[in-house]
Amino acid sequence: MSKFLISKYTKLEAYTPGEQPRDMKYVKLNTNESPYPASKGVIDAVSDEEVAKLNLYPDPECKFLKEKLAAYYGVDYDNVFVSNGSDEILSFAFMAFSSEETGAIFPDISYGFYKVYGDLYNVDYTQAPLKEDFTIDVNDYLNVGKTVVIANPNAPTGLSLSLEDIEKILQTNKDNVVLIDEAYIDFGGKTCAGLIDKYDNLLVVRTYSKSRSMAGARLGFALASKEIIDDLNRIKYSTNPYNINRLTLLAGAAAIDDCEYYKACCNNIIETREYSKKRLSELGFEYLDSDSNFIFARTDKINGEEYYKKLKANGVLVRHFSDPKISDYVRITIGTREQMDTLFAVTEKIFSEV
Amino acid sequence: MSKFLISKYTKLEAYTPGEQPRDMKYVKLNTNESPYPASKGVIDAVSDEEVAKLNLYPDPECKFLKEKLAAYYGVDYDNVFVSNGSDEILSFAFMAFSSEETGAIFPDISYGFYKVYGDLYNVDYTQAPLKEDFTIDVNDYLNVGKTVVIANPNAPTGLSLSLEDIEKILQTNKDNVVLIDEAYIDFGGKTCAGLIDKYDNLLVVRTYSKSRSMAGARLGFALASKEIIDDLNRIKYSTNPYNINRLTLLAGAAAIDDCEYYKACCNNIIETREYSKKRLSELGFEYLDSDSNFIFARTDKINGEEYYKKLKANGVLVRHFSDPKISDYVRITIGTREQMDTLFAVTEKIFSEV
Repeated sequence: MSKFLISKYTKLEAYTPGEQPRDMKYVKLNTNESPYPASKGVIDAVSDEEVAKLNLYPDPECKFLKEKLAAYYGVDYDNVFVSNGSDEILSFAFMAFSSEETGAIFPDISYGFYKVYGDLYNVDYTQAPLKEDFTIDVNDYLNVGKTVVIANPNAPTGLSLSLEDIEKILQTNKDNVVLIDEAYIDFGGKTCAGLIDKYDNLLVVRTYSKSRSMAGARLGFALASKEIIDDLNRIKYSTNPYNINRLTLLAGAAAIDDCEYYKACCNNIIETREYSKKRLSELGFEYLDSDSNFIFARTDKINGEEYYKKLKANGVLVRHFSDPKISDYVRITIGTREQMDTLFAVTEKIFSEV
Repeated sequence: MSKFLISKYTKLEAYTPGEQPRDMKYVKLNTNESPYPASKGVIDAVSDEEVAKLNLYPDPECKFLKEKLAAYYGVDYDNVFVSNGSDEILSFAFMAFSSEETGAIFPDISYGFYKVYGDLYNVDYTQAPLKEDFTIDVNDYLNVGKTVVIANPNAPTGLSLSLEDIEKILQTNKDNVVLIDEAYIDFGGKTCAGLIDKYDNLLVVRTYSKSRSMAGARLGFALASKEIIDDLNRIKYSTNPYNINRLTLLAGAAAIDDCEYYKACCNNIIETREYSKKRLSELGFEYLDSDSNFIFARTDKINGEEYYKKLKANGVLVRHFSDPKISDYVRITIGTREQMDTLFAVTEKIFSEV
């Protein structure tokens, strides 16, 4: 830290991304990436000819991509915002819609970044405890008079909230933004994107990082009322107007055209997830009934941290969180069938040595 | 604007990027892009194989690229920060190092975004007037007790500050960050990057957008003391840790290896700039003695706004600013020799019709 850093940031605890060790080649099941490569259309879109044109700025309005997204999701062009990964939208939304006065509420166990944004923007936030079974208690979010932030399905639990519950939250918080973070929606949850015309306080946040195999391209988008999208644009044009590079814009548009490929990838992941649940049961694990591309699991045979460490020593990365409420669990990204079989074989080996 | 936007942002005036009209094909001399394409090494680096791997997150630490930059600029790895365009660094730096209490000072005529960041982060900022001849009065920046932000060469004037003057500012503001924005340094100015070991308050900001033909890839970097770099990382990891995509990281590293190509491009631009100055004189223009890849020029024959409009109607885009102090001028990006000759031919046509 320098002596120049202004005091309000000196105690900031930044977000810790999943580890990316380079000491050996791992089976990477720790950052919820898709195990499937970018589609042929995406590869073709990033042509040598387009790379040569990198001397030119990207379109700051991102018109072509937003038109594709609007058509695909059946919304108006003015209902779409795109960004350098969905984290950027979350950051803009916390900045724009929450404060010391407005406040925010989100689950105590959820995407770890919500708390970081709350701290960064000096938001008076509340972390509502999940129930014993790790589900969200919808009553905690009714008539709260704060910005509501909920990941659906939630992470790292993988559990979904029903559309009925989301509507209750929207109806009882009409003076506040309700941000539904649908990063994992394409693996079995029910999207609330269809509700943006009905509720002007709904902000749906999406990412290309999971179901569209583009974590490396950094592309997120939001669907909401024109007015909320205008506010996000106001923050974008006041921080970094050219926030998305030319190649990601091309790749993002091409991925929409290749939607059948990505649907097939999602179906594979869902199949592998259900297979993995069965295998985890056979190995003596308990797990939450995930609608996402990961499984949150624990076992009496070994504690979460030790299991994580032994897996890592054997070349398999999963994610462990130190929060005491979930420290007994690990979050396992669904990889290919082969990757999961490696995980299970290594697990059997670990159990045989415990 | 939605009713949810928190009040402090409701009056924010966002930055206006240079126009990118799509109604016809223009000779684009309005956003200071390089007229030369990305190098062969950059094109090769963004291979089909790498695009296929977009399913994986980029390295949030950007290690490989930062190692390349450190070696090229002869600084330590810990003295380098990279970002999604240099605007992102400017945004982070205003956020981290200036405030209502700390304040900031920058020239009244400079990169228009400084004022936007000042407003966004509620900074008590001062805009020091340029002298009559559009040079910076170094005395305005001595012992100011504020964060100092200076573009060197300045934009849109193209005029440089001497290293001696920059050292005076650094020496008399030891308790504040002095940010030198060297976006245009590779076209003839003298970099102060060699001073980062001597002054722990110096933050040098650079971009790949101009001299490295990569405006479309969005890549900026900063050179500074380890402590200042740590602070920038703290903001990055609290907003968007994966701020640079995989392909831009690869392109950025490859461009360092192709430095001879980019030096040749810069030399071409400098040659064309000097040629253009001569032609502008012949056409009856006055201009500032630019060290950058643009020329700030005016003429008694036609006012700045009208000239800009007539050029646009004839398929040539330059940039005009409405600020009354400079509204008589246009900023002309240096393109290829052919593009400049088109500009001059169109100008002769316009003059013949006035």
